[in-house]
Amino acid sequence: MTAHPDFLKYVDKHADKFVQRLADAVQIKSISGDAAYREETIAMGHWLEKQLKGLGVTTALKDLGQQTLQGQRLDLPPAILGKLGDDPKKRTVLIYGHYDVQPALQSDGWATDPFTLVEKDEKLYGRGSTDDKGPIMGWLNVLEAHQAQRLELPVNLRFCFEGMEETGSEGLEAFIEKEAAAGEWFNGVDCVCISDNYWLNTRTPALTYGLRGIAYFAINVSGPGQDLHSGLFGRMVHEPMTDLIKLMSKLVDHDGQILIPGIESMVAPPTESEIELYTKMDYSIADVAEAAGASIALSDHKETVIMGRMRYPSLSLHGIQGAFSEPGGKTVIPSKVAGKFSIRLVPPQTPENVVPLVTAYIESEFAKMNSKNKMNVEHSHGGKPWVADINHWNFEAARRAIEAVWNKSPDYTREGGSIPVTLTFAETLGVNVLLLPMGRSDDGAHSTNEKLDLSNFIEGTKVLGTYLYEVAQLAREG
Amino acid sequence: MTAHPDFLKYVDKHADKFVQRLADAVQIKSISGDAAYREETIAMGHWLEKQLKGLGVTTALKDLGQQTLQGQRLDLPPAILGKLGDDPKKRTVLIYGHYDVQPALQSDGWATDPFTLVEKDEKLYGRGSTDDKGPIMGWLNVLEAHQAQRLELPVNLRFCFEGMEETGSEGLEAFIEKEAAAGEWFNGVDCVCISDNYWLNTRTPALTYGLRGIAYFAINVSGPGQDLHSGLFGRMVHEPMTDLIKLMSKLVDHDGQILIPGIESMVAPPTESEIELYTKMDYSIADVAEAAGASIALSDHKETVIMGRMRYPSLSLHGIQGAFSEPGGKTVIPSKVAGKFSIRLVPPQTPENVVPLVTAYIESEFAKMNSKNKMNVEHSHGGKPWVADINHWNFEAARRAIEAVWNKSPDYTREGGSIPVTLTFAETLGVNVLLLPMGRSDDGAHSTNEKLDLSNFIEGTKVLGTYLYEVAQLAREG
Repeated sequence: MTAHPDFLKYVDKHADKFVQRLADAVQIKSISGDAAYREETIAMGHWLEKQLKGLGVTTALKDLGQQTLQGQRLDLPPAILGKLGDDPKKRTVLIYGHYDVQPALQSDGWATDPFTLVEKDEKLYGRGSTDDKGPIMGWLNVLEAHQAQRLELPVNLRFCFEGMEETGSEGLEAFIEKEAAAGEWFNGVDCVCISDNYWLNTRTPALTYGLRGIAYFAINVSGPGQDLHSGLFGRMVHEPMTDLIKLMSKLVDHDGQILIPGIESMVAPPTESEIELYTKMDYSIADVAEAAGASIALSDHKETVIMGRMRYPSLSLHGIQGAFSEPGGKTVIPSKVAGKFSIRLVPPQTPENVVPLVTAYIESEFAKMNSKNKMNVEHSHGGKPWVADINHWNFEAARRAIEAVWNKSPDYTREGGSIPVTLTFAETLGVNVLLLPMGRSDDGAHSTNEKLDLSNFIEGTKVLGTYLYEVAQLAREG
Repeated sequence: MTAHPDFLKYVDKHADKFVQRLADAVQIKSISGDAAYREETIAMGHWLEKQLKGLGVTTALKDLGQQTLQGQRLDLPPAILGKLGDDPKKRTVLIYGHYDVQPALQSDGWATDPFTLVEKDEKLYGRGSTDDKGPIMGWLNVLEAHQAQRLELPVNLRFCFEGMEETGSEGLEAFIEKEAAAGEWFNGVDCVCISDNYWLNTRTPALTYGLRGIAYFAINVSGPGQDLHSGLFGRMVHEPMTDLIKLMSKLVDHDGQILIPGIESMVAPPTESEIELYTKMDYSIADVAEAAGASIALSDHKETVIMGRMRYPSLSLHGIQGAFSEPGGKTVIPSKVAGKFSIRLVPPQTPENVVPLVTAYIESEFAKMNSKNKMNVEHSHGGKPWVADINHWNFEAARRAIEAVWNKSPDYTREGGSIPVTLTFAETLGVNVLLLPMGRSDDGAHSTNEKLDLSNFIEGTKVLGTYLYEVAQLAREG
């Protein structure tokens, strides 16, 4: 193992102290999405800055401006920047994490107070335990183990911790662009490590090298001047719902294939080495069933199902605005309806090259209907996909760290959803970005009874530290 | 003209008094659907009974039991029964109307207080003016004209006025069945006249001889144990919305044709004489556009459009329960969705013969999808259609009355919606039922600024009385 043995020993010996630090962090209710907790969210930023300072990091609190939330004009929680080491012979690793959390009420179904860290059966329960205070504390643990033992860190470190991740990272993109400039905090960074996601399962550590993008759409159909009675108008007029449902039915097949011409064909078929990653992956159809709560996988073929999420685009129909949506029966012909759907994108798809295909197709299908209703396709928001090179030394260092600590090879995963900051770092800094998950698939981030396994916290801390040693080692190996 | 000339003269001379009676009726807030107005609704029943008594009618207030409304246990408004004449040589006509009204608040957009009858530009504005207090007052006017002048009525009359029509006619069906028995109030009735609908337009009186029935459905599709994130699960699982939208898209074509095998073919094509009724009808595509608020008629062919409403079944998609229905974007895969639709039925269709066809078709279409989701078709409520013989003397008498008073031949119409009491009278009493509209298509029943044209009230009163004379005349003609 490349990591300094004293580092690893210290982590094992001080597990209780590390858990206490996580407990201290969890008890600060840094709920960024609720104006009532804005002060406490900002306080969490200050607490974190103080911790970093105490561990020898040069810090700065960066003002991201203001926002209007729940009718109030509020200061945004600050970005916490940190710098430790400036040795030109060492690689510089930028660490990202977020110190804000999702809301949580014990009455939502928590077994214990969400803001009191509770250890039970080797699991640490509490809001933010896995998302994302646990991983941040993991980095503090690494710093402490080195500071306490006067060990030299093998790399230069930069930190970027934000307090608005759970509500859209407001202000962060422009901020990162600014700090990437010459002479600013992120200048000279060689790679990025983000610890804000999860293993694919509960058994095998993972390295994540891809995220899907998204394009969100509404199909707006309108006709009548007001809602009509289906008795009086049924079969006299073009009903917007009839047109909309027809259009929505032409978007995706029941096997998940996207029916919009040109969307599927943009995606290159998997190479043999890529297929091998999926074949090796510690994942089964039973895992899908467990996660979804029912045996509804689109295929019985493991690789097909996992590729459906990780390397193919998907199209989901979310719902209809303006139609009858209550329980019971209402005999209405809605006058104006909007069908919502989104497409998860994979390279080389982007909102820019996908939106025109979607719009043209729906318009041509609508033209075939000879309807006198009005229709338009609205693209409301979108984001590009991201895929990193897993053969880069950044991933190689993480793989070695995982194998050293867990004695297991990682699953190489791509996530079906989005973590926009990943793409921002990759595009703005032009370096390799690694997603290095600490928690497991069943941690319940955003849900009730969120937890982080004690082993994932402690061994995960070792992985983070070892990863830094491996980055340095690979630099030496050239 | 067969009507007694003194009757017609009296009506013209006493128009102001008749309008005052309508004003008295309108100011009683008999809103059956609101518990706060239950006492006033019952008071309206008592007021009406007193009016009838004063006009020489033998009356009875019939208790229809109780209901629970807005958490309160309430007495139902009574049915008001009336009897005038028992001459075995005369025909006996049963008159139906309802004395309850829809809610109305000036703040909904009324130009004047809804419960104060206001005359403006020869129009009488007020809640219930056309639906259905105007027509009931029309009958009282007829009685008064005869009583005041000691004219003998040409037929025996029976009255049935209810106070729960706007909220489902609770208790009425069983009540009618009871009163149809030998020795009871409706025994010996030769025909029924219902004045609770409208002309097809604002120009030509109508006689209505048909109503569509209805069968209401929900397609329930469920799969995941809970709502899923479309990023994490998109293209891994069978999404209930994908299946539901596919199924809903297979029910009705964009031209209004129902795609469920067996439904369209049950309906006989129109005969030549029936087509003639539609050709003659005072109706145009422009009328559809005006009523619907947009030029969205399914065809430019008048007969096609009007037959779509009057003599063919229709299928409307009302909405989806359980999916995302709010403004904005949400990337959810809903776990359980219910698609609501209804079919308006025409003879010989009934819920009994239609529901099995619908269920079998949807089940077979779902089977083709090989989905692992669960699906079932739910039939929540329904009612049979009704069509009367327009060659019956009841309709012939009404036609003659309209031609005599309005100097115009009526449109023979079928309504696209349902008035359940019509079918109950037809089936229970086994006699011809006539719908004899007093108001116009633009009266705004159930809406703001409900009105009845003064001419429709006064000439309409003449039509009602003349109709009775024509019933008697046709009996004499054999």
